[in-house]
Amino acid sequence: MNLARRAAVLAILAGALSCTSASTVSTPPVSVPQLAAPAPELEPYRADVEALVREALVNGQSYALLSDLCRTAPKRLSASAGAARAVEWGERTMRAIGLSNVRLEPVLVPHWERGETESLRVLDAAGLPQERLSLLALGGSVATPPGGVSAEVMVVTSFEELRARAAQARGKIVLFNRPMDPAQHDCFAAYGGAVDQRSRGASEASRVGARAALVRSMTMALDDHPHTGAMRYDIDVEPLPAAALSTLAADRLAARVAAGERVSVNLQLSCRTLPDVLSHNVVGEIPGTGVEREIVVVGGHLDAWDVGHGAHDDGAGCAHSLEAARLILARGHRPRRTIRVVLFMNEENGARGAEAYYKGHIDELERHVLALESDAGGFTPRGFATNANPRAFESLRAIVELLDAASANALRVGGGGVDIGPLANAGVPLVGFRPDDERYFDHHHCERDTLDSVHPRELALGSGAIAGLLHVIANLPQPLPRNPQPDSAPSR
Amino acid sequence: MNLARRAAVLAILAGALSCTSASTVSTPPVSVPQLAAPAPELEPYRADVEALVREALVNGQSYALLSDLCRTAPKRLSASAGAARAVEWGERTMRAIGLSNVRLEPVLVPHWERGETESLRVLDAAGLPQERLSLLALGGSVATPPGGVSAEVMVVTSFEELRARAAQARGKIVLFNRPMDPAQHDCFAAYGGAVDQRSRGASEASRVGARAALVRSMTMALDDHPHTGAMRYDIDVEPLPAAALSTLAADRLAARVAAGERVSVNLQLSCRTLPDVLSHNVVGEIPGTGVEREIVVVGGHLDAWDVGHGAHDDGAGCAHSLEAARLILARGHRPRRTIRVVLFMNEENGARGAEAYYKGHIDELERHVLALESDAGGFTPRGFATNANPRAFESLRAIVELLDAASANALRVGGGGVDIGPLANAGVPLVGFRPDDERYFDHHHCERDTLDSVHPRELALGSGAIAGLLHVIANLPQPLPRNPQPDSAPSR
Repeated sequence: MNLARRAAVLAILAGALSCTSASTVSTPPVSVPQLAAPAPELEPYRADVEALVREALVNGQSYALLSDLCRTAPKRLSASAGAARAVEWGERTMRAIGLSNVRLEPVLVPHWERGETESLRVLDAAGLPQERLSLLALGGSVATPPGGVSAEVMVVTSFEELRARAAQARGKIVLFNRPMDPAQHDCFAAYGGAVDQRSRGASEASRVGARAALVRSMTMALDDHPHTGAMRYDIDVEPLPAAALSTLAADRLAARVAAGERVSVNLQLSCRTLPDVLSHNVVGEIPGTGVEREIVVVGGHLDAWDVGHGAHDDGAGCAHSLEAARLILARGHRPRRTIRVVLFMNEENGARGAEAYYKGHIDELERHVLALESDAGGFTPRGFATNANPRAFESLRAIVELLDAASANALRVGGGGVDIGPLANAGVPLVGFRPDDERYFDHHHCERDTLDSVHPRELALGSGAIAGLLHVIANLPQPLPRNPQPDSAPSR
Repeated sequence: MNLARRAAVLAILAGALSCTSASTVSTPPVSVPQLAAPAPELEPYRADVEALVREALVNGQSYALLSDLCRTAPKRLSASAGAARAVEWGERTMRAIGLSNVRLEPVLVPHWERGETESLRVLDAAGLPQERLSLLALGGSVATPPGGVSAEVMVVTSFEELRARAAQARGKIVLFNRPMDPAQHDCFAAYGGAVDQRSRGASEASRVGARAALVRSMTMALDDHPHTGAMRYDIDVEPLPAAALSTLAADRLAARVAAGERVSVNLQLSCRTLPDVLSHNVVGEIPGTGVEREIVVVGGHLDAWDVGHGAHDDGAGCAHSLEAARLILARGHRPRRTIRVVLFMNEENGARGAEAYYKGHIDELERHVLALESDAGGFTPRGFATNANPRAFESLRAIVELLDAASANALRVGGGGVDIGPLANAGVPLVGFRPDDERYFDHHHCERDTLDSVHPRELALGSGAIAGLLHVIANLPQPLPRNPQPDSAPSR
């Protein structure tokens, strides 16, 4: 821990600062002794944290909780019957593990259905359908007309290329085929560098007069599993049907086109958007004892795509959140601050649960001391990411160093999660759980996101790490300093 | 980095110390400024390290090398035809990737064969065989007589319990059923806390007059895959047949016995030990330029158990070692010191390759500046473990912090590996590669240790991390300080 970190930690943990006067702290003299170990003020928490991790490993319920969710509602896209079962499961499970103030909070969610027909066929010279390619409609896509759309395929790797070749694109089916960058060590960064093709490709293709949009699946795995995900139409474009191809299918098509072949395909989709449906966020609490008005939020999202089991995305986050609370209760802790578990609805295709939570709790957001989301899978923990201001960051880093017993001792700058994202507007420090991510996008949004791809101990370590962090945050003498409000926020 | 670490790093990297006068350095004054970043002396290496990792991810051959080994010689227990093919593969592959001085170094290895018959049947009251339980003979076990050994099962969880109940054990088949401790976050520590049952159980059972030894498989997974592994007989005991049961089979047997049932079983094994066979370590080098007499060793072991593909244990280590060298060549580096790749033979059941390397190179061990082994699987890197003395430890830690791009930035105190272990006698600092270990023992020594359980990017990151560490070590102005010789070594 360097000097600035050490000073920040000391100041905050001793309660010497108000939670809003961060900028007035002076740098301490350089003769302050250095510590290799975390701040001594945190040492009293070490045994608790290690015991929580041990409990997660030895008597934990993480995998049982996840298994139960995946069995109860393997398909739980917003507005589906599965999503309604998942909400019931969340409420029932919160009561079963002993949470208080369990309630459903209303969220009006979009209702998109995949429909029965999804097909992409390569056409021969006579226009007759031949090879079938693996695909999934993107969430939010319109259907094709009956009989589908038949057109020649044009392959691009960027919107810039598409615009430069706009004249060629007219009447075509555009395949956006830029892979996730394998040179990125951070797979989420690689995802972020490619996902614009999925979310915005159909709008861009529409602007140049194309007839449909295909996108290479957002994964570095080379296999035949297409990965779905959300897209949206800009309001000024005609909506085009949009679907994801497996990486192998995209490679096959692109190779033929690159070889100079004119490849035509027929795309048929029967997906549709129905009127919005009333659904819910599921909320339960461990009431605080002492400063119960102050709230620490932990959550994941209950909804999942309609393929696989939503095991990593985000059954794991639901299991982590519930199990973290259960572990704290099982160890007999009664935190000073209230720990609130929120299972959010509709992260995948609308983030309406995030919006509903923000609006529904706006009067108490100044009492939210931290919000933590687990929405990056159930793999072995590496640590956490946070948007916290530099002083809170250093305090969090000292706390996270206590989580070595759960392999979760790294703190990085980064986002918290879609569902807690709006809370940044109120200055709430956000934290995202960060497990190992090398395998995540092999499973994300595809039929491989199944229970058996989650490892029981890896999942349990995540729950233990999150429980440890919640326990410390909920009991610190003073809350972490809040972030500046966005309108005055300095750039990091 | 704390003061002592910083001072040690500065002193070593500046070349201010001879490589053998470590103990004379005084502690620097506490006013030395602290750095949050790695030592500036190492910064020139950062770009190289990151480029090596990028090359491993984008143009890497790790998975192709492993796939080739697993296809060429999936079964390669010492003295088998597969082991001979693996040696040929190692020599051929070293030449193909451009190593110099490629040669085979002789190792006389034990020759144990599993044989055709392995069976464990529960007997009914009439002594007739009923339920069949999953098992594998332990490597080194003697066979049962034809027709097998039939006896009642006695279940114990420790040698102490066995001795305390010695009178009951006479004539029985003893099942050693102490699980790997799930409370251990470090799975290798949990393995270390249970594996005495496998390696020594038969000798202990023999001492109390038992007729055979069974051991619960060394894994925390609850499934029906037995895990084999090495055992040995003390010279003063009658050798008993010894085999590993799957964890589920062990649980089923133990539950019946715990319920008061007298459970008898029939064990049949046809394994045998034949005369020793001549095999080889496979050695190749990137010759140094400048201080080529100084040697950095990197290696894994070529042999593997005769189940699965030996993909994680230790095909991964062979692929890591070969690919690390290939990456260094591919990036155009010509290290100051010689990097020597060693694919060891017979780690699994004798460590004869380790012994042969030590004895065969004893005259140059004082010029071995470091030895690194990868024998902990092909999962996402976490970092490295080392037996290095405290000063070398802090220098290594600063170097390892450069490996953040490969997720390998943690350095722990620990062992290097079985194959390089003897080099500790010459004061060589030993380093073991440490990937994530939560899944390792699900696959270790069992039929699940297959190529498809290795993730291409995870494997590639390991190669990149090892390449980065080798590159820095082989080019430092001065070698790391050596360890004290064991006869004068202080305890850590």
